[in-house]
Amino acid sequence: MSQRIILNAFDMTCVSHQVAGTWRHPDNRAETYKDLDYWIELARLLESGGFDSLFIADVVGVYDVYRDSVETSLRDADQVPVNDPFMQISAMAAVTSHLGFGVTAALTYEQPYALARKFSTLDHLTKGRVAWNVVTSYLDSAAANMGLARQISHDERYDLADEFLDVTYKLWEGSWEDGAVVRDRERGVFTDAEKVHPISHRGHYFNVPGIHLCEPSPQRTPVIFQAGASPRGQRFAARHAEGVFVAPATIAQSAELTASIRSQAEAAGRDPAHLKIFALLTVITAASDAEAQAKYQSYRNYASGEGMLSFYGGWTGVDFSRYDPDQPLEAIDNDAIRSVLALLTKADPDRQWTPRDIIERRSIGGIGPVLVGGPQTVADALERWVDEGGVDGFNLAYAITPGTFADFISWVVPELRRRRRVQTDYGANTLRAGLLGRESPRVPDDHPAARYRGAFVNADNASDRTLASPFAA
Amino acid sequence: MSQRIILNAFDMTCVSHQVAGTWRHPDNRAETYKDLDYWIELARLLESGGFDSLFIADVVGVYDVYRDSVETSLRDADQVPVNDPFMQISAMAAVTSHLGFGVTAALTYEQPYALARKFSTLDHLTKGRVAWNVVTSYLDSAAANMGLARQISHDERYDLADEFLDVTYKLWEGSWEDGAVVRDRERGVFTDAEKVHPISHRGHYFNVPGIHLCEPSPQRTPVIFQAGASPRGQRFAARHAEGVFVAPATIAQSAELTASIRSQAEAAGRDPAHLKIFALLTVITAASDAEAQAKYQSYRNYASGEGMLSFYGGWTGVDFSRYDPDQPLEAIDNDAIRSVLALLTKADPDRQWTPRDIIERRSIGGIGPVLVGGPQTVADALERWVDEGGVDGFNLAYAITPGTFADFISWVVPELRRRRRVQTDYGANTLRAGLLGRESPRVPDDHPAARYRGAFVNADNASDRTLASPFAA
Repeated sequence: MSQRIILNAFDMTCVSHQVAGTWRHPDNRAETYKDLDYWIELARLLESGGFDSLFIADVVGVYDVYRDSVETSLRDADQVPVNDPFMQISAMAAVTSHLGFGVTAALTYEQPYALARKFSTLDHLTKGRVAWNVVTSYLDSAAANMGLARQISHDERYDLADEFLDVTYKLWEGSWEDGAVVRDRERGVFTDAEKVHPISHRGHYFNVPGIHLCEPSPQRTPVIFQAGASPRGQRFAARHAEGVFVAPATIAQSAELTASIRSQAEAAGRDPAHLKIFALLTVITAASDAEAQAKYQSYRNYASGEGMLSFYGGWTGVDFSRYDPDQPLEAIDNDAIRSVLALLTKADPDRQWTPRDIIERRSIGGIGPVLVGGPQTVADALERWVDEGGVDGFNLAYAITPGTFADFISWVVPELRRRRRVQTDYGANTLRAGLLGRESPRVPDDHPAARYRGAFVNADNASDRTLASPFAA
Repeated sequence: MSQRIILNAFDMTCVSHQVAGTWRHPDNRAETYKDLDYWIELARLLESGGFDSLFIADVVGVYDVYRDSVETSLRDADQVPVNDPFMQISAMAAVTSHLGFGVTAALTYEQPYALARKFSTLDHLTKGRVAWNVVTSYLDSAAANMGLARQISHDERYDLADEFLDVTYKLWEGSWEDGAVVRDRERGVFTDAEKVHPISHRGHYFNVPGIHLCEPSPQRTPVIFQAGASPRGQRFAARHAEGVFVAPATIAQSAELTASIRSQAEAAGRDPAHLKIFALLTVITAASDAEAQAKYQSYRNYASGEGMLSFYGGWTGVDFSRYDPDQPLEAIDNDAIRSVLALLTKADPDRQWTPRDIIERRSIGGIGPVLVGGPQTVADALERWVDEGGVDGFNLAYAITPGTFADFISWVVPELRRRRRVQTDYGANTLRAGLLGRESPRVPDDHPAARYRGAFVNADNASDRTLASPFAA
């Protein structure tokens, strides 16, 4: 039987998420990102199309590398203005019953004690449909406004991230035993205090002595999403991630990358099948290939070249305004540029890439490939990405929203359903159970969070703490 | 014409908010605090009753002073487990169009740059119906888990709070000019960058150089709620608060307290009418006085005395288990106890108060008075609190939820509407405009946030920053 394709929609609480300029397209409703109606309709739409989840990106800062100014980003609305990604989730949860919600939180500026509570709360409110996209954050402008002199170094961010996740795992998995909440109205016991344990965490970055503030939620630990591309980021993903977001340029690159991620997961002691890998793609579709191509051109007409350089400035730290637009990128001495370039040249080894090429080539797909075609063409390509490229599914970005998602659901999903690739009925009620195709909403035993189950049961003398009441008769 | 009474419901994302033990009452649905249905139904109910707002309390910690243990709080579910108070707001906003939402955030553990974004986001999603209940936080258990060795001292917390609010005011009021967001599709300008200004804040506690991340929301600054009772807390409220929550024991105390708050506001240069004062009350009502008394007794039967001492332990820092239950409170050498006692003895000057009396007297009203009676009795009393006690409205706590609110809306609201005291149609669409009875949703000119309007317009050379595009033809 063919492998099911997992579908994830990629959005952000801002106007222009991955593509600059298309906010001007008459069919784009991106500027309504600040209205509940936009999110409520999007959630209903995605659930009607069998999507597993909606993944909401975030940055707590602005793209101000290009020309050393936020001016270009503001003009194009390139991820600024940007609202908080948590706030609209419950309104979407209220109108759906299966769609999952991946929320981005940059842990460099959060306290694990408070963030653990946010996710437990969302997991309760959504009845087990929440994922946490773990981001270590990359913008200096964010660090400056959060009271740090400068960004913490890249590798140190991952050390901090490892400890941060450990603290949250302890809170989610180890603090409250199953059965701690008894709700015994006769005896007057809501929670059996002997089954709730302080985690007594003393670490390098955090001290968290206490108990988790929330009772156990359906999934306990939210599904862990991660998108790190660096070697350190890949090690982190291999250890923690249950959903990995990648952006290979070609199916061949995808095959190599997915094999590498799965073998790293295996080396970290995990079943690679417990890690779902999503390729970033933008799909422009319509009734026929020709109509799809016409639509693609109509989006390109609105794309902003300078906006894309502003995005690339934030992603790479390189101010492209300081270079000749036609200067070959390989002449720029910058690690990030080299890794972007490595992808670009792999896709097209005979071409020399310049800043102008980035604008031309990447205008409506962000850093991911763009697929253009009618239902058959797109479905054929997606099947190849899965069968040959080794991905479990796709992280679908938009050129216009919700139009790009609506088109995909109108044209491609029915074709993929005919091919038994996309679910018609959801098999599970929680996000994790749906992704893994199993009964339990909890992390599998091979996940690092699982080792804290029961870890604190004998660590305190709960039973000795039961004191006689001074108010006993 | 009689003064309109402003109604606010007081709830918390936990099981037992102000009253310990009543979760066991068969009509209490408090334990469904973790389900969206509870909040959605509550919001609809309150809007049907003409309530101005729902105020959601919060603590980021546990009550563990009593017996030096969290055991009693866990057993009774006294504010633990406790979920994040922000997460369910958008689901409630989606099913209402006028009800306001006051959300508690303790600024001791937040960064102003990130918190300002949360409130701007909620103000967008609710279309101008959000308030921020500013709390400086009071539990040592919270501080310990947020990486602080101990709680910051009481008065220093208010110094930090003053600066924190200043930073958020600058972001909300001064960073984006009206008209900065132009959405000019022809010229390709979403935001006019010349109208967006960095706030360049360098202070004692915070450095925030950048621009606000969000475009202006309907209210810009959320309505500011505050509940500080100490002299320093009252000074803070006089300066910043637009809704002040007080808990006098009697109408006479209320008259004194409200006069004092209004004169402090006037001394701070504000129109005292721009400050709405809410008295904490629990109203137990039914068709008649006798039925209300019977209901009151049924709640008292479930109240937990030790739970109340656990609450008082957290509020005052005094471990009552270390004292004889019948020892007079005046013998306990503790400032917080003395101030609670001052209120108790004012209400009943001839009585000696003991720990046991707290349990007996306060069993279902938390630290606020309880009104028991049929519609006429309650409406008469509420009118006296307003006309003689000087309050603008009430912060209504529950004995059981949503039962206590539903009873109030079934029995008391119709009577108050007959007396033209409670609104039948909402006069405004935003929370601030409704509270102040004016057109504009923005802070009045005499509020400290208002001084940052336009404050940064000439602070940077925005017009000099417009550079020729390196990609111009």
